[in-house]
Amino acid sequence: MTRHQTPPSEVVFEEEFVRGLTEIFETRIVFNQVLGLKVTSLRGDRVTGRIAMKPDLVGHYTFNRVHGGVISAGLDAMGGLASMAAIGARHMDEAPAQRLQRFGKLGTIDLRIDYLRPGIGEYFDLEAEVLRLGSRVASTRMEFRGADGKLLSTGAGAYIIS
Amino acid sequence: MTRHQTPPSEVVFEEEFVRGLTEIFETRIVFNQVLGLKVTSLRGDRVTGRIAMKPDLVGHYTFNRVHGGVISAGLDAMGGLASMAAIGARHMDEAPAQRLQRFGKLGTIDLRIDYLRPGIGEYFDLEAEVLRLGSRVASTRMEFRGADGKLLSTGAGAYIIS
Amino acid sequence: MTRHQTPPSEVVFEEEFVRGLTEIFETRIVFNQVLGLKVTSLRGDRVTGRIAMKPDLVGHYTFNRVHGGVISAGLDAMGGLASMAAIGARHMDEAPAQRLQRFGKLGTIDLRIDYLRPGIGEYFDLEAEVLRLGSRVASTRMEFRGADGKLLSTGAGAYIIS
Amino acid sequence: MTRHQTPPSEVVFEEEFVRGLTEIFETRIVFNQVLGLKVTSLRGDRVTGRIAMKPDLVGHYTFNRVHGGVISAGLDAMGGLASMAAIGARHMDEAPAQRLQRFGKLGTIDLRIDYLRPGIGEYFDLEAEVLRLGSRVASTRMEFRGADGKLLSTGAGAYIIS
Repeated sequence: MTRHQTPPSEVVFEEEFVRGLTEIFETRIVFNQVLGLKVTSLRGDRVTGRIAMKPDLVGHYTFNRVHGGVISAGLDAMGGLASMAAIGARHMDEAPAQRLQRFGKLGTIDLRIDYLRPGIGEYFDLEAEVLRLGSRVASTRMEFRGADGKLLSTGAGAYIIS
Repeated sequence: MTRHQTPPSEVVFEEEFVRGLTEIFETRIVFNQVLGLKVTSLRGDRVTGRIAMKPDLVGHYTFNRVHGGVISAGLDAMGGLASMAAIGARHMDEAPAQRLQRFGKLGTIDLRIDYLRPGIGEYFDLEAEVLRLGSRVASTRMEFRGADGKLLSTGAGAYIIS
Repeated sequence: MTRHQTPPSEVVFEEEFVRGLTEIFETRIVFNQVLGLKVTSLRGDRVTGRIAMKPDLVGHYTFNRVHGGVISAGLDAMGGLASMAAIGARHMDEAPAQRLQRFGKLGTIDLRIDYLRPGIGEYFDLEAEVLRLGSRVASTRMEFRGADGKLLSTGAGAYIIS
Repeated sequence: MTRHQTPPSEVVFEEEFVRGLTEIFETRIVFNQVLGLKVTSLRGDRVTGRIAMKPDLVGHYTFNRVHGGVISAGLDAMGGLASMAAIGARHMDEAPAQRLQRFGKLGTIDLRIDYLRPGIGEYFDLEAEVLRLGSRVASTRMEFRGADGKLLSTGAGAYIIS
């Protein structure tokens, strides 16, 4: 294979690409709005985001705990974003708008979430890294942390890319 | 082990238990309300539910596709409900209210979702069955189907019980 | 997509393809020999196999239980075989030898195994079905059963194909 | 919960415990012998091991690649070993022999393996860490690396403990 399997970390994305990708992710993927999922950083091999706790996201009425589905949905979305950033970094020869169109073809193949500790707090930090970027599949690893930095959940996802 | 590992299917739940469990699941777990997840049947070894499609749940703006996170969140919730129904069926000697309190201690250990086909349609049918009910862990298998009955996603989850 | 996503079940494989695929699977994949994994049936959408218990496969010295790794290795191999059979069924226009060469390009993307009950018995029956056959990825579901038919473990795997 | 959820890393195991645990793992779990899986370090929160490549472990005849089942079996075993070490570190008040008996009750609940790159090389290094040690379930994360340190596969497993 001639393509690099490890996404480049040193690529600097253009303002237009960052703005475009963030807008698609935070707004046009409507359910991410429902989650309140915001992008906090975008790199070719690693992306981060944040979810502020709110009543809509409660999963356990007694403890005011975040719903496990918020965690799985958020980590799935972040793995997809990381895959998209990695593809973007691979195709820096294309115009930003052209690279953004690749997002439309991205799809999750499968996802695993491990719930380690109850998700309680004012906000949560999400992170995803691409472990391998092939020509057809991206493999990612994700983390979901509390406001105090404590690891609450981990995830792994495979994405179909093009 | 003296307890049965396969949850009984022939148990008939009391009206009070069904109403109570449905109310907790659909209303008090607030994020299930956000998903619009409704219980359609409750048995000791198998539960079913439905999600009506709505703009909030969109994950792919071009195709009006349901967000993968709706699928993972919905299937996680259903696996938990199936575990709860199985525990309820095991403890028919307890009063309904007492059995419902066990729900507060339920937690997802981990979850896997396989996305097979795009989720497009007016509504989706979810199903979960308990493959094994131990004294500490319940293992479940889930399916997410389109309005035409087509299998769109499958899931597997392990839950801590007590 | 013009290709069918569900592998055809009604295809009848030629003797040469069945013999060739079985030989590759049982003999040339050396570790399958170590497991003693034998093909018992081959269809376009579903394959079955069997592993006879032997001292080498013990994982738990006290109970003479089969090692969890035998289960994960066996189910991974069966998911790959099912994917290969599905690809074979899709390309019946190619000569058997040509179809068999596709096996060389098959690879597991990821795997999940749920261990439900201890694997004790004289032999074990394995089964894999292809839930979706895309142009690049095959999604499979697997089962591992005891000699009495009891479900001992379940699996899910994604495979890269071409 | 009064028990610590993070296994202590600073515990120093007695020679007797290390020797006993290594002997059970490498010898009495017969299938680990078949894999040639050796313990290289044992700590309360992290364990490492090594598998030397040999003809028996081949999964892909053309490339002399290690069988995916060797990876899943090895990582499952390592996750179990890490759980056992973590339990050992929690119960330093018990005699080594008594702690070793806890191994007999350990069981894998489920396992996920992500295959990133082909496993080719003279030997492979395996590592497992316990992300959370509850009173009933241990959650672990595993890595499988080539002789050059390259990450070839990752894993996640949940184990029932007591």
